[in-house]
Amino acid sequence: MITNELFFQKEATKEVVKDAYDALYKEMVTDEVGYYTLPQSDMLLKIEGFIEDYDLEVKGIKNIVVIGIGGSSLGTKAIDTLLSHTPNRNNLNLIFMENVDPIEIDKNLKNLLFEESFFIMISKSGSTIETTSHVKYLIDRYDAPVDSSRFREHFTFVTDRNSPLDDFGREYEVPCFHIPANVGGRFSVLSAVGLLPLTLLGYDTRALLAGANALKESFFDRQEDDLIQKAYYYTTHSKDFPINVLFSYSSAFSAFNDWYVQLWGESLGKIDKTQNHVGMTPVGIVGSIDQHSFLQLLIEGPRDKTVTMIKVKDFQTPLTIPDVHLPKLEKTDFINNHTFNELINAQCDATMQSIKDQGISVDMIEIEKLDAYNVGYMIMYYELLTSLCGYFLGINTYDQPGVELGKVILKEKFAN
Amino acid sequence: MITNELFFQKEATKEVVKDAYDALYKEMVTDEVGYYTLPQSDMLLKIEGFIEDYDLEVKGIKNIVVIGIGGSSLGTKAIDTLLSHTPNRNNLNLIFMENVDPIEIDKNLKNLLFEESFFIMISKSGSTIETTSHVKYLIDRYDAPVDSSRFREHFTFVTDRNSPLDDFGREYEVPCFHIPANVGGRFSVLSAVGLLPLTLLGYDTRALLAGANALKESFFDRQEDDLIQKAYYYTTHSKDFPINVLFSYSSAFSAFNDWYVQLWGESLGKIDKTQNHVGMTPVGIVGSIDQHSFLQLLIEGPRDKTVTMIKVKDFQTPLTIPDVHLPKLEKTDFINNHTFNELINAQCDATMQSIKDQGISVDMIEIEKLDAYNVGYMIMYYELLTSLCGYFLGINTYDQPGVELGKVILKEKFAN
Repeated sequence: MITNELFFQKEATKEVVKDAYDALYKEMVTDEVGYYTLPQSDMLLKIEGFIEDYDLEVKGIKNIVVIGIGGSSLGTKAIDTLLSHTPNRNNLNLIFMENVDPIEIDKNLKNLLFEESFFIMISKSGSTIETTSHVKYLIDRYDAPVDSSRFREHFTFVTDRNSPLDDFGREYEVPCFHIPANVGGRFSVLSAVGLLPLTLLGYDTRALLAGANALKESFFDRQEDDLIQKAYYYTTHSKDFPINVLFSYSSAFSAFNDWYVQLWGESLGKIDKTQNHVGMTPVGIVGSIDQHSFLQLLIEGPRDKTVTMIKVKDFQTPLTIPDVHLPKLEKTDFINNHTFNELINAQCDATMQSIKDQGISVDMIEIEKLDAYNVGYMIMYYELLTSLCGYFLGINTYDQPGVELGKVILKEKFAN
Repeated sequence: MITNELFFQKEATKEVVKDAYDALYKEMVTDEVGYYTLPQSDMLLKIEGFIEDYDLEVKGIKNIVVIGIGGSSLGTKAIDTLLSHTPNRNNLNLIFMENVDPIEIDKNLKNLLFEESFFIMISKSGSTIETTSHVKYLIDRYDAPVDSSRFREHFTFVTDRNSPLDDFGREYEVPCFHIPANVGGRFSVLSAVGLLPLTLLGYDTRALLAGANALKESFFDRQEDDLIQKAYYYTTHSKDFPINVLFSYSSAFSAFNDWYVQLWGESLGKIDKTQNHVGMTPVGIVGSIDQHSFLQLLIEGPRDKTVTMIKVKDFQTPLTIPDVHLPKLEKTDFINNHTFNELINAQCDATMQSIKDQGISVDMIEIEKLDAYNVGYMIMYYELLTSLCGYFLGINTYDQPGVELGKVILKEKFAN
């Protein structure tokens, strides 16, 4: 169960709400945008079949290496970080090859045995420079040329159907999983991009999809109009509140925050039809840690932010602060005999109260517990919210034309 | 060697520059603000003596556990993350107990043996609720009451002289290291707060202090007026550019970015003398990863940001992208036979160019290599820049009154 309470005015009229709903409905039924239907795809069947055939245990696989960047890694990392404490998670190491920072590459591979590793190369086109450079390096370092059985048996591709990478895979008999062409990278975590590694790690990816589907169904049943109200409020006030803070009260959300930053920033930071620069800047912080970092700025700094609090009601990890008295520090004894679960949630409530008292627009998302179902729900929550904001901003939510120039300049630097 | 080039107008007049310089000089010589003189303190002598006497190896210590939050942990984490690949770093595990998230506490302690652990409790007052709760829990879990030799031999305190925690330590013979009273938490990494754990981990903390001192001396020799120009530009344009992005091109900077966010946000987000809410919002991102996340928003989104690029010239990790051809992906072969070092730096340059082409105010910090000296320099760079911004905003840079209300509300929640 997840609830969301908005502590600001719902300003969208019935007509505005209906139009926004219709816009998303149209994106879905025309297949213009594919993420809505990912929870119903049969990709999991294919993945489960593959995993059964491949049999990691017999092959002695100990490491899942995801080679991908941005939308190809952030979602998987977010979900694994949210759920890594749950019993479903097996003991495989999950390693990401994202950055081309040589220090990071060296650290990642220092003790990695090729024979114990299963590599998933993820790229919609296949031409991402970071990803191809990593794969070239791996081929050379581990002596696994593309036409060898070593390569074929240890690599898998996740890519668009008929992309250059898909063609490569077909020709060299490398297993390929396809991302629907109408699903953009940052909306792709519920496709093979996330489902393949997450299923390999033991997670209940059926429950993940079920959670996402539940919110989607509920939204398209008109049970979630508050999502529309929230998006309307954020976008119509985006000049006054250009920064949207996600204040998640659990360290398990650290990578989810990063996923949110990409989803929000890259989807909404656009030039609109009238050539205006629009969008809002996402900031992800973690409570209670960032009470000691960012909270001062929220409370006393410029009034340019909205804040969403995320609270986990039941951490399912019952640890109590014992009735221990520290000499001279008796002032802190009010917390003795309470659980850490109570403490962090009381901190979340107290912080929200102190923010709300400043007249800052805030809302609270309460999650019953961290499990695959609720995480799927949260993924869909932010995807729908992003689509709605994009609709209200009058932009294309799903492209990223602004990053192309840098790629061209990069290539020129290496010409000749 | 570190250089910083500003690609925007230097607008501060000679008089403005002189006045800002004088303000910081006065803070330093009157001892109103203590971080300026940390590089000259004799704390390292005390720490080195302690480490020699304590002899971790003989005691079988394998884990350094830092119990602290905000300014008590972020600086150490930043420096360890920047330098963990260097040969000085020994094999001790560094564990942070920061958040009161029970999942995180459970994960941290799951395989931790008390006998192999050295705990450093860091708090200026000693009354930080997260930190005391952690210590109480450790005492109970590991059966180490405050008056036991187990506690005395495995715990150390870092705190203000004559704070309640210092009194506790004196009475129970727990070793104490002192933070100067005029050094705030977020400016304290070059005090015992950072020096104790970092020296334990094998780092050349003398070089760290030398680097910080070099910039400080140079600044007070009037060789670094560009720092003043930058602060003046940021603060006088803070209404137009309320967001300052730090775009660091190396994953090693991820925790440094977090340290910067606290330093910047908590120091500058204030109510000024005329009751205005002032300050700028810090955002830390990592290249090349966040080219695939945040760059689109930078390029096409609202023009409300300044950007500082950080480039590491020599990663001292020579890895080459081999001359391997991936079938169908020949377009990426322009990078073959170049190093990852070249690639990530070319990406940094290309991204900066594409941002600059948009008319966005940008500057570039180039670091010769990641070593303790240069990291010390970077710490002092951001501390001085923060002080200068605080001066120009006309605020108290060193307090954090806005976080008190939440603490009061929290306590009320647990009052009977």
